[in-house]
Amino acid sequence: MALVDPLADLIAALQRLPGIGARSATRLAYHLLKTPREEVDSLCAALLSVKERVTYCSICSNITAVDPCAYCTAGDRDSRLICVVEQPENVAAIVKTRGFRGRYHVLMGAIAPLRGIGPDDLKLKGLIERVGAGGVEEVILATNPTVEGEATAHFLGERAAERKIQASRIAHGVPIGGELEYVDGGTLAHALAGRHSV
Amino acid sequence: MALVDPLADLIAALQRLPGIGARSATRLAYHLLKTPREEVDSLCAALLSVKERVTYCSICSNITAVDPCAYCTAGDRDSRLICVVEQPENVAAIVKTRGFRGRYHVLMGAIAPLRGIGPDDLKLKGLIERVGAGGVEEVILATNPTVEGEATAHFLGERAAERKIQASRIAHGVPIGGELEYVDGGTLAHALAGRHSV
Repeated sequence: MALVDPLADLIAALQRLPGIGARSATRLAYHLLKTPREEVDSLCAALLSVKERVTYCSICSNITAVDPCAYCTAGDRDSRLICVVEQPENVAAIVKTRGFRGRYHVLMGAIAPLRGIGPDDLKLKGLIERVGAGGVEEVILATNPTVEGEATAHFLGERAAERKIQASRIAHGVPIGGELEYVDGGTLAHALAGRHSV
Repeated sequence: MALVDPLADLIAALQRLPGIGARSATRLAYHLLKTPREEVDSLCAALLSVKERVTYCSICSNITAVDPCAYCTAGDRDSRLICVVEQPENVAAIVKTRGFRGRYHVLMGAIAPLRGIGPDDLKLKGLIERVGAGGVEEVILATNPTVEGEATAHFLGERAAERKIQASRIAHGVPIGGELEYVDGGTLAHALAGRHSV
């Protein structure tokens, strides 16, 4: 005698989501059981709307509901600067800082030879076209500070050098608000090497 | 310039769920964006199926897809024992212990005067009918070990005494595998008061 079938099915479906284990899935399922029908309907509508309405920008490959995306069409953004990131969520993170007023380019991945992902698997064509069209003065390589992200930044840096385009890499260092003793050795070494006079 | 609208809507909808904050909601939304359409469809189907197919047992008030529920119709469960709990998820928790072979009754809440919830707001009628029909020898009060749960157990214990039905309360004590120094004072006091000879 198991759980009520539809509930067990829902728990199984929720458990497939990242960061949701058996306990959270069970709690969510019982919560949804008591949630008014209209709220569950609106959650489903939001889920399906994401699949139906979200597409990719034909210029920068970022996610968007209108093509080209708002960042590519914004008149107040500097087209001479392109910030290259791995994923759409990275764009959202940089936008939130309010510290960058240029354009974006989303690679939709990073070079990862061990997983068989090479440069041809990334959304590079659009970037090459944009740089080729002229007017781009600097490409900021904001891929993740991981092995894959560094490899990708290195690859793009070399391609930029061939085309005589300035490329820069975001700084590695100690995070603001952190304590030195909790910062890993690699980061601390980078922070020391990247020191600047005050 | 905000996030892509459908994505922002989904993040907002996910954040309404218990235990899901802004970060988890964002992570889930971006994950769902990359999830194949069929998987999102099956998650929606599971959500709607819970709303459409799950109903309440007319005997014990537990959730079920067939009325009466499997626990009420099972031939191998002892009808002389009724375990009273607050919520359907409590039934699932007790079933998982495999330590109880009687029937269940779900109150769908607990007495909470501060929130205006009295005995009349609980699913008591079915319980009174079952006890009134005869054959019930013991009512096990397995409401939560909270103020509301204790008040509910106390109330039900008095009603059972009036009807000369034996009522029992689940034991309070130190949890198995716990360490005494981390057990709160109230629990430890209960564990001492409820000691038994070995």
